[in-house]
Amino acid sequence: MIRFNCDYSEGAHPAVLEKLALTNLEQTPGYGQDIYCRRAADLIKNLCAAPDADVHFLMGGTQTNLTVIAACLRPYQGVISATSGHINVHETGAIETTGHRVITVEEQNGKLTAEQIARCCQEHWQDDNPEFAPQPKLVYLSFPTEYGTLYSKAELTAIRRVCDEHNLFLFMDGARLGYGLEAPGNDLTLSDIAACCDVFYIGGTKIGALLGEAVVIVNPKLQKDFRYFMKQKGAMLAKGRVLGLQFLALFENGLYFKISKHADDMAQLIRRACQEAGYSFLYDSPTNQQFPIMPEKTIKQLEEFYAFSHTRRLDRGRAAIRICTSWATREEDVRQLTADIRKYAGK
Amino acid sequence: MIRFNCDYSEGAHPAVLEKLALTNLEQTPGYGQDIYCRRAADLIKNLCAAPDADVHFLMGGTQTNLTVIAACLRPYQGVISATSGHINVHETGAIETTGHRVITVEEQNGKLTAEQIARCCQEHWQDDNPEFAPQPKLVYLSFPTEYGTLYSKAELTAIRRVCDEHNLFLFMDGARLGYGLEAPGNDLTLSDIAACCDVFYIGGTKIGALLGEAVVIVNPKLQKDFRYFMKQKGAMLAKGRVLGLQFLALFENGLYFKISKHADDMAQLIRRACQEAGYSFLYDSPTNQQFPIMPEKTIKQLEEFYAFSHTRRLDRGRAAIRICTSWATREEDVRQLTADIRKYAGK
Amino acid sequence: MIRFNCDYSEGAHPAVLEKLALTNLEQTPGYGQDIYCRRAADLIKNLCAAPDADVHFLMGGTQTNLTVIAACLRPYQGVISATSGHINVHETGAIETTGHRVITVEEQNGKLTAEQIARCCQEHWQDDNPEFAPQPKLVYLSFPTEYGTLYSKAELTAIRRVCDEHNLFLFMDGARLGYGLEAPGNDLTLSDIAACCDVFYIGGTKIGALLGEAVVIVNPKLQKDFRYFMKQKGAMLAKGRVLGLQFLALFENGLYFKISKHADDMAQLIRRACQEAGYSFLYDSPTNQQFPIMPEKTIKQLEEFYAFSHTRRLDRGRAAIRICTSWATREEDVRQLTADIRKYAGK
Amino acid sequence: MIRFNCDYSEGAHPAVLEKLALTNLEQTPGYGQDIYCRRAADLIKNLCAAPDADVHFLMGGTQTNLTVIAACLRPYQGVISATSGHINVHETGAIETTGHRVITVEEQNGKLTAEQIARCCQEHWQDDNPEFAPQPKLVYLSFPTEYGTLYSKAELTAIRRVCDEHNLFLFMDGARLGYGLEAPGNDLTLSDIAACCDVFYIGGTKIGALLGEAVVIVNPKLQKDFRYFMKQKGAMLAKGRVLGLQFLALFENGLYFKISKHADDMAQLIRRACQEAGYSFLYDSPTNQQFPIMPEKTIKQLEEFYAFSHTRRLDRGRAAIRICTSWATREEDVRQLTADIRKYAGK
Repeated sequence: MIRFNCDYSEGAHPAVLEKLALTNLEQTPGYGQDIYCRRAADLIKNLCAAPDADVHFLMGGTQTNLTVIAACLRPYQGVISATSGHINVHETGAIETTGHRVITVEEQNGKLTAEQIARCCQEHWQDDNPEFAPQPKLVYLSFPTEYGTLYSKAELTAIRRVCDEHNLFLFMDGARLGYGLEAPGNDLTLSDIAACCDVFYIGGTKIGALLGEAVVIVNPKLQKDFRYFMKQKGAMLAKGRVLGLQFLALFENGLYFKISKHADDMAQLIRRACQEAGYSFLYDSPTNQQFPIMPEKTIKQLEEFYAFSHTRRLDRGRAAIRICTSWATREEDVRQLTADIRKYAGK
Repeated sequence: MIRFNCDYSEGAHPAVLEKLALTNLEQTPGYGQDIYCRRAADLIKNLCAAPDADVHFLMGGTQTNLTVIAACLRPYQGVISATSGHINVHETGAIETTGHRVITVEEQNGKLTAEQIARCCQEHWQDDNPEFAPQPKLVYLSFPTEYGTLYSKAELTAIRRVCDEHNLFLFMDGARLGYGLEAPGNDLTLSDIAACCDVFYIGGTKIGALLGEAVVIVNPKLQKDFRYFMKQKGAMLAKGRVLGLQFLALFENGLYFKISKHADDMAQLIRRACQEAGYSFLYDSPTNQQFPIMPEKTIKQLEEFYAFSHTRRLDRGRAAIRICTSWATREEDVRQLTADIRKYAGK
Repeated sequence: MIRFNCDYSEGAHPAVLEKLALTNLEQTPGYGQDIYCRRAADLIKNLCAAPDADVHFLMGGTQTNLTVIAACLRPYQGVISATSGHINVHETGAIETTGHRVITVEEQNGKLTAEQIARCCQEHWQDDNPEFAPQPKLVYLSFPTEYGTLYSKAELTAIRRVCDEHNLFLFMDGARLGYGLEAPGNDLTLSDIAACCDVFYIGGTKIGALLGEAVVIVNPKLQKDFRYFMKQKGAMLAKGRVLGLQFLALFENGLYFKISKHADDMAQLIRRACQEAGYSFLYDSPTNQQFPIMPEKTIKQLEEFYAFSHTRRLDRGRAAIRICTSWATREEDVRQLTADIRKYAGK
Repeated sequence: MIRFNCDYSEGAHPAVLEKLALTNLEQTPGYGQDIYCRRAADLIKNLCAAPDADVHFLMGGTQTNLTVIAACLRPYQGVISATSGHINVHETGAIETTGHRVITVEEQNGKLTAEQIARCCQEHWQDDNPEFAPQPKLVYLSFPTEYGTLYSKAELTAIRRVCDEHNLFLFMDGARLGYGLEAPGNDLTLSDIAACCDVFYIGGTKIGALLGEAVVIVNPKLQKDFRYFMKQKGAMLAKGRVLGLQFLALFENGLYFKISKHADDMAQLIRRACQEAGYSFLYDSPTNQQFPIMPEKTIKQLEEFYAFSHTRRLDRGRAAIRICTSWATREEDVRQLTADIRKYAGK
């Protein structure tokens, strides 16, 4: 059984483990105040062209989302998210548990639009009693989205403009950031993102690390006292260096980008095989997640050898599945899968 | 500079890293539902003689404390802790952030007593309006305590009895559990602890792991839906196996106990050197933390070569410091330190 | 200007004020433990045929909703509500502030259906990882709804059945309960409601009291320690009798029902006038809120003399407004309004 | 049985009820946006010499404390209080439920001192890792205190200075404010208090109103969006005028001060009787609460006719009780009590 069901089936990129092993018995200060965290942070700030940003290393996506969002909002404020946003569907109400409403707008191919955000704010502020509803104060979006889709530079810039008009913070969940940056057709860079967002994070867990997300806080207002939030939410690791070292391994030689591109390339091979087999897609994703629509019979055949997720049952005996590649995906496994896709499609 | 200032200055025990490396490219399911987490859990349940316990792997101490305590309490209930308890002094009010009061009683050598707990409950229930104060429902204690001291089997049993009388849960913070179990004079075993506590955890971060705490939930009432709490608090790791594997390495051959004993042995060497130098101790600790009281001049001399923490300034030019050993402490470093202690004391 | 814009424009029914004045200088114990609260509670339990229920008096709707919902849920559980539910639209995220998600289902004429609730639970429990989403545990509904519509006995019974099947609590917001009970066509009684719900409340603020909601807790599981919740949420009044006395005045001679019927009768007069004028309705309400659809020109004309709320702008120059009667509405004011409605419609 | 056990045994001052009755059937806008709330607010701002303050009317003490404190703090910040502070002893952990720690300092005659506050801040900021403990950001004090004692102008000014030095907000709980202002020896005025505090409240519940506390927000930073907090916490009354009208009745002719003085005068009569009987006092209170120390035998005798609270059992068969007067205390009842005090003391 070959697993294409998620992008966290393996451990870490060997270079990451090696870095941990190499420094293992060195003694360093705790809580992220060691030399490796500092070096990793400097590398990241450099790549983001954001010398005044603060970089913190947290452990996982839900933890990062709940900590950052708590740091952005007052108790009566809410965060705008697409209905398909991770904070809305896969985090057990973690945001509500910190006291805040997730204000949802209908997803558009996994994304939200500048217009939706503007309308949401207008509705709030034009009400006779705006104080009877949570005040929109933050926009949460993912790059890539849960559906593997991407915001273009134009879209992100338009959202930034709306945020400025309505005094909103903009927060990008980059759990799969590398897979977005290296995708065909993407026109955003790390420094574009840093220029547009008040805060965002660079996902490690899904791209080469054992665990870890690097939060980049660009807006000085959000930088103040962030370590209090981290500690209070259980998001400050005693051996903080374990995270810093991993990001150092990922970023000191561009490894992060190289392995991200590999995952995207593998996904493109699968995509083309599906296209050649005549399958359409539930979402049009250029990144490491592909959502082909297949006959259920074919899905059953593939399931004997491959693990993937079922996304939605459709009409005429068809269903959409999610096939996921990662930094660790082996080309030979992909070749076997694409051959089988073609075979079962009779091509 | 040799660091004796804490027990998390290094990475992981080499056997732990090796286990991670060996399994690195295997594909496993996520979120702690892999074979390695299962095996580690089975080992731990076995050692605890608690076959019906649930074992979950979380990332760090503050996270574990806040998640477990949230799972034990209704919104109007509080947790009884010694004033010196970690949740009261070093977690940025994480417990309060989950909505609960830490009900403090004056520490007695770092511990709380059965009598104090009983009195606290009596005061609550004998009030004319008990509902005007948070209801005591949980006892939090650490083994070893923040001051390195230990509960005896008699003390823990007495506390259990009071908990039964007052319908309280008992939760043991075992961030340094191994250092307690292996300490000279300790009369508690893992299975004693499992028999006394409703829930406790076995610390990995400070004893050989990169990160990780193994929560053992003995009381079935607290087992239900615990994974919801973990996910919601950001305490469920996508690559859960990273934690399971580490505990497997620590427990499959008794490594955890062996390296704990090493730290305690090293601490005893330091203790004896201090005694021979004529120093008394702020707390009488048989575990890996030692709190000698020295002339400030001597402390300054030692600080040129060794890192340790300042605990309290005392009278007559003296101060108490904390010297901490760990699984990673090298005997040669301890020999050098003890020689210097004797030298500066003129012995 | 005559106000039809809400049902809380005046003070209290004179009999309520009289009761307060009559007992004003008596000395009683505080916090709802006086004889008047006890008598009012007994009356209500009697009317509900629920001798084992607990009755508590709180101050307002948002406060009652947030206190009751907090008492029903564990931190990872959520409350199912129609999108139009008061807790979802008019309470500034108060439920989220207590840590819980409002799980919304699309309103059906202001209501939710048994089928929607069942589907919501099935979706949760059939997920591979139910613990990644808030667990549905409570159903919140209003009687009458925000749109003045009513659940029939059959509908409420069906919802109860689904709640039993899925282990859910059922909570009815009865801020306008009297207006529902006395509405033409209603087939539910107070005792039906007590038999179906785990907890519900009888609104006083909108039906004759200065302020106050009487919470009836039928399910013993929810009765335990409720006063802790009240005190903690600031919902326990020092002079609790101020609430008890008002409910005594409202219930000792059936006043509550009589004044509720008056409001419904007045609403029916307005309804008929609108029908005769040829207007349709946005919602088909038999209670004290009416939602006629009128030409915007006519609305402007009416606005010179009457206050009401704008509900929605529609096509062809039309809009829906909300006209609200109450226990205090004067028949002469209604006669004037209905005459004007006919006049401006040219009838 | 005559009740001296608290200051909320009766309803409202007759002038308050009269005002409610007089305006009862007028129609006004809801949620505190009516003419009576506005007038009451203007009166209060005038008396405080704080024309730019915001005044809001809330329902009770716990509600006011939790709402104001939530508005003052970020999630990782705590509030400094004397151990005897109402938020620490009588509010079921309401502050912790909003996520904040109550940072206690040992009470000094019911008060905290400028030095204690300064030390508390210094300890926080001088720690190596200040982010490991809740950050002190707010000082909570009561005037009068729970023990009836008062801050002098010099003391309050010193506290203000420390707040400025350490960037703290200052919040005064004035649940019994009138009884403090009118007490013999008091040297603080409403405008002194407004000049020193960032926010405070003027208690109505215990001084003539049915219910109600008037919050005066002086600091513009705390004014912003306060209505969101009120609504979210269930602290915004639909018929807001019910509160505004009561404060109007209390303040338009100085009634508040007159009835406060009456309670203090009555307390002084009791005080003098106790002194003449040779009793000392647990706390030296010039306000409406008196804490005489009596033989337990005498207390038993008094209890046959009078209700009061037991405060503390002392040595030599003595105990301290609390005798409480209020705006509603009848001089004839006091005369009877004082005669009995003298009689049982054999004077």
